[in-house]
Amino acid sequence: MSESYPVDAVNRVKRRHDRGFYDHDTVHGLLDTAALCHVSYVIDGQPYCTPTLFWREGTRLYWHGSSASRMLRNLSKGEPACLTVTHLDSLVLARCGFNHSADYRSVMAFGLATLVTDPAEKERALVMMVDRFFPNRTAGLRASTTQEIKATAVISMEIDRASAKIRAKGVVDDDEDYELPIYAERLPVRTILGPAEPCPRLMEGVTRGPDLAPYSAGRSLDEALTEAYALAYATAG
Amino acid sequence: MSESYPVDAVNRVKRRHDRGFYDHDTVHGLLDTAALCHVSYVIDGQPYCTPTLFWREGTRLYWHGSSASRMLRNLSKGEPACLTVTHLDSLVLARCGFNHSADYRSVMAFGLATLVTDPAEKERALVMMVDRFFPNRTAGLRASTTQEIKATAVISMEIDRASAKIRAKGVVDDDEDYELPIYAERLPVRTILGPAEPCPRLMEGVTRGPDLAPYSAGRSLDEALTEAYALAYATAG
Repeated sequence: MSESYPVDAVNRVKRRHDRGFYDHDTVHGLLDTAALCHVSYVIDGQPYCTPTLFWREGTRLYWHGSSASRMLRNLSKGEPACLTVTHLDSLVLARCGFNHSADYRSVMAFGLATLVTDPAEKERALVMMVDRFFPNRTAGLRASTTQEIKATAVISMEIDRASAKIRAKGVVDDDEDYELPIYAERLPVRTILGPAEPCPRLMEGVTRGPDLAPYSAGRSLDEALTEAYALAYATAG
Repeated sequence: MSESYPVDAVNRVKRRHDRGFYDHDTVHGLLDTAALCHVSYVIDGQPYCTPTLFWREGTRLYWHGSSASRMLRNLSKGEPACLTVTHLDSLVLARCGFNHSADYRSVMAFGLATLVTDPAEKERALVMMVDRFFPNRTAGLRASTTQEIKATAVISMEIDRASAKIRAKGVVDDDEDYELPIYAERLPVRTILGPAEPCPRLMEGVTRGPDLAPYSAGRSLDEALTEAYALAYATAG
């Protein structure tokens, strides 16, 4: 049994509480299957829901954007935020409207988001912003310029509370409804990788290296990201 | 040129403003490609980011959940919310860290969310909650019970402001970087339908009807949802 996040009124799964998980293994494992998250934050009482790329280190989340974005300007002071990851795994057609549903896996993570300002921490974060997805890639890239580093803001948030919510059961109808002549099905949804499209302006002889092996055509994106994550943090030391 | 949403400090696309759109055709077209959204709202200064299924009618959005959920209890008073839809279309590997990116299509819609309490409006919304995704389906289902209707909350939000943001250009590097012997690619991401899985407990002779034709194996989910949407609102009259 792995460590768990504390549970209180903020992160307790109330609706369908049988679908809720708070242990690190489940929460972190789900976070590491994803590249895209949605971050919620508040400015002057107005909530914003912003999509962005993110990654995890231990119980800390990182995401990025331009220094000019309204989200980052606001969060640089240290603001409450909620970062959510969701995979839609199916649409579920049942025998009554009420039992129509979806299979999904989601995590909501709560904490105080702050701007990464320490130069050494920012430098390391800018490496992992690429290498978490594409292990060892930064070492082979054109080095970042001072201007580029300045123009990239990195946000970090220690997870105070979190919950995962998972539904994975397809059609579930009321017992008596199975006797009705009504069609019902689970309609699977998959997010997969297409064939890689090499840049048309590659220099002669430049080819795809073995580090990109996790990203093969037809594979589930969440599997590829999970494998890349394990490689990235194994080699990052 | 279609009508547009007004633009102000809340919804103006500031970062990469060349990627921003405010016209109804672009915003609504993107909303209709999706089943899943993330809704942001605030309780006691704490932002929440909740995934849910939603749909659009004109300039109004609807989403649902159990009456017990904390989001809906809060929004029933009429609360500022932000509903966001995002499609991740690719990961982009460039020749320097700064130009790593992603192709995506997203919409952020802002307004005041309120609980649907009028019985006639709620009844119609509960039909479209199913039929928007699966045209004509409700007519063939076991009728909803009073208890089920009571246990389902429907939230509605007139869109006050909205913006769409689209990146669809793959690898874009600085001019001088194309001369470097560095591999770069666009890694396409597709969200597709798997083969439908009929409920194992179907009554004999019950088969999939022609109304589910938009949902064929291998098809992009966003294409299927767009087609279903057009059929639903053509037949819903």
